[in-house]
Amino acid sequence: MIQKYPSVLLENAVNELSSLPGIGRKTALRLALYMLRRDVPYTEGFASALLALRKEVKYCKVCHNICDDDQCSICSDYQRDHALVCVVENIKEVMAIENTGQFRGVYHVLGGIISPMDGIGPSDLQIDSLVQRVASGEVKEVILALSTTMEGDTTNFFIYRKLSGYDVKITVLARGVSIGDEIEYADEVTLGRSIINRTSFNDSMKI
Amino acid sequence: MIQKYPSVLLENAVNELSSLPGIGRKTALRLALYMLRRDVPYTEGFASALLALRKEVKYCKVCHNICDDDQCSICSDYQRDHALVCVVENIKEVMAIENTGQFRGVYHVLGGIISPMDGIGPSDLQIDSLVQRVASGEVKEVILALSTTMEGDTTNFFIYRKLSGYDVKITVLARGVSIGDEIEYADEVTLGRSIINRTSFNDSMKI
Repeated sequence: MIQKYPSVLLENAVNELSSLPGIGRKTALRLALYMLRRDVPYTEGFASALLALRKEVKYCKVCHNICDDDQCSICSDYQRDHALVCVVENIKEVMAIENTGQFRGVYHVLGGIISPMDGIGPSDLQIDSLVQRVASGEVKEVILALSTTMEGDTTNFFIYRKLSGYDVKITVLARGVSIGDEIEYADEVTLGRSIINRTSFNDSMKI
Repeated sequence: MIQKYPSVLLENAVNELSSLPGIGRKTALRLALYMLRRDVPYTEGFASALLALRKEVKYCKVCHNICDDDQCSICSDYQRDHALVCVVENIKEVMAIENTGQFRGVYHVLGGIISPMDGIGPSDLQIDSLVQRVASGEVKEVILALSTTMEGDTTNFFIYRKLSGYDVKITVLARGVSIGDEIEYADEVTLGRSIINRTSFNDSMKI
């Protein structure tokens, strides 16, 4: 049944909050009423943080990770191994791998994986710029760290084909990550070990 | 362990989102990245709806319900029975009771219940203005519709004592609502029936 709201302002706020993924209308109402109990600067700070994120966020020109400048803190860190590039689906995976403390190379954020069901093809992803990085000759090894799903395997194979003409080693995460799992939810020990035990892409096909 | 964020803007947004009740840092990150995938007007609309709610919201001068004018749509509806006042804890309970379609009286929103543990005493609630409404002689019956918890019972009894000098009938919701439950989560049929079968406050003490 349709819920009646005593105020149009409240209804608008509930509509916006419940447009977020995983937030239903009952939770949205609870959050809106929570904001009413807090002072005005709280909501001002909340709103301005979200607006600042959306309007002022930048993406690293090298790896497409989110950052505050033209280049992210990882790409501009020359203590890291720039010949070792870890290809990930999204920013969350960069954060998950950084948290393991096992990886001293750099990243390449695709911005998604190939998924015909969702209408995401190779041209929607940062694959061309990965090929350019490899073509520059600076990259010695590309680690494919995508989720172990069908879409991840498809994307792995597409990238493998694209890079096959170049003198670069292509590896995948050790399959310590169980099949069907999402990378971002893997525990740190498993994820860290899977970076150390990464295997040749060809070997990984022999399952 | 402390999560490292690739951007201060992202970290600020995650801090703000995870300050909401029931939203952890992992969910907050997911929501922030969702906003980055949507266009700028989406986040602008989101932020302005919350700011408008917090800054422009008004409270009814009669019943303290949330509203867009000086008086809420329920108090300004003269087809409703203004001699019958239902006392509730908060706005959510007004919405829950309105949804039953069983109640044709008006409301009085206390803004909480007496809870010494949370430092909420009678003076923090809209009890004096309830006494004034009753003292004006316009109210024939007060229905106490607070949650059936110890705090709710305490508040019921406090209001009962405050109103005992006036010529007004004091009733409570029929205890069809199971003890220990929160009013807002009761199903509509139970809640509707409990309004119809409301009993005298004195009788409700004979449990």
